[in-house]
Amino acid sequence: MKRIDSVKNDHVKRWKKLHTRKGRETSGRFLVEGYHLVEEAIKAEMVVEYILMTEAIVLPSTLSVQNQDVILVSEQVMKELSETESPQGIAAVCIIPSPPTVKSLEGRYLLLDRIQDPGNLGTMIRTADAAGMTGVVLGEGSVDVLNSKVIRASQGSIFHLPVVKGPLEIWIEALKKASIPVFGTALEGASSYSAIQPQAQFALIMGNEGEGVAKSLLEITDQNIYIPIHGHAESLNVAVAAGILLYYLRG
Amino acid sequence: MKRIDSVKNDHVKRWKKLHTRKGRETSGRFLVEGYHLVEEAIKAEMVVEYILMTEAIVLPSTLSVQNQDVILVSEQVMKELSETESPQGIAAVCIIPSPPTVKSLEGRYLLLDRIQDPGNLGTMIRTADAAGMTGVVLGEGSVDVLNSKVIRASQGSIFHLPVVKGPLEIWIEALKKASIPVFGTALEGASSYSAIQPQAQFALIMGNEGEGVAKSLLEITDQNIYIPIHGHAESLNVAVAAGILLYYLRG
Repeated sequence: MKRIDSVKNDHVKRWKKLHTRKGRETSGRFLVEGYHLVEEAIKAEMVVEYILMTEAIVLPSTLSVQNQDVILVSEQVMKELSETESPQGIAAVCIIPSPPTVKSLEGRYLLLDRIQDPGNLGTMIRTADAAGMTGVVLGEGSVDVLNSKVIRASQGSIFHLPVVKGPLEIWIEALKKASIPVFGTALEGASSYSAIQPQAQFALIMGNEGEGVAKSLLEITDQNIYIPIHGHAESLNVAVAAGILLYYLRG
Repeated sequence: MKRIDSVKNDHVKRWKKLHTRKGRETSGRFLVEGYHLVEEAIKAEMVVEYILMTEAIVLPSTLSVQNQDVILVSEQVMKELSETESPQGIAAVCIIPSPPTVKSLEGRYLLLDRIQDPGNLGTMIRTADAAGMTGVVLGEGSVDVLNSKVIRASQGSIFHLPVVKGPLEIWIEALKKASIPVFGTALEGASSYSAIQPQAQFALIMGNEGEGVAKSLLEITDQNIYIPIHGHAESLNVAVAAGILLYYLRG
């Protein structure tokens, strides 16, 4: 088994760059961390280039890794590569798969307009997965879906359903052509969500944490909806709002 | 106007201790940070001992502070006191108010069992506020509600509705005596939430991120409910789940 002890090793230097979007795009690789996510990546048949483990690690029986791919790393190397406070001691370098293709438009879609917070993006992908959505569409200007905080917050759901990137205008038009109703979320000129009936197929657009969904998108939806605020809060967290609406709309 | 430039100033040393639960309990004070939260604290008639501002700060017209309470601090002092990456340059030292008393049990309550993540706790308080809940009850073993990350994630909602601490067993018994139905959340021996009718009054218990609601509590509720998972996710984030259930149950 290969072994890397020094944080100055060239591999380690290259893997550290996977923490940035640029580093991931240049190398075509991304990093996942922790038992659960490494397991999910393997289950999802990601191409795993290396599995990095510290000596202390005990592999759970559910996790079958092939020896030739494993590199033993020192605690310091793991710490250098980890973005969590207490690393579990296992990580994987994966090849970024080619973007999923959507063959025919049917089902339920979550469209996301310029989400900035990685925790919110990951949580919404997890929620979309739980709600049985067909796919998630990320518009331009969103935080990168392979950001390690997004992967962590998604709890592996980024491996469960297609997350595609694309201009939301074009998606909205295509969804409408396919007779899938598109709901924007807005505070003005919108209906309370409970006035809408649950739908067999639909698309829901959630927007930027500060600004909401872009006006240009709200103008081309079928209908815009809001969640009533009954107390004194100014708004809901975007991931919480997505959860309420996805579960309501799917009925 | 008083002025503090050095991070070694005794006040600064004392205020830094407000980042820990022990420091807050010993001094009876807590710290809020940023325009919005300082404004919410003042609006909520918290006793504000000091407002700390850097020289660069321009007070918005909505924020009226009395000069005698203001201390001008250097950028370094603000950075030392701040727990955010880019401090806005304004913070307030507030006196911890005496715990709110619940005079009569009526309305809608969110009960929280050993929530660990400050972001989850703050987001649930914000969601409970938005959903028009009467109050939030924190059981033992929860992260401190005056943790600065909780306050930030609550977006000021901790100032909008009573958040009380207390043993959940006693609360559950009292709510049941007051004919308020108590719903636990569980994966086993529970009904899908959509089988329940929305309720004029109710209490909902959400549990620890890893373990859920304690079994001893689930045994004394009126009914336990769960949110069906339609996809491949193992679970929902607890704050998202709280949002779905609170908005569903209030109808």
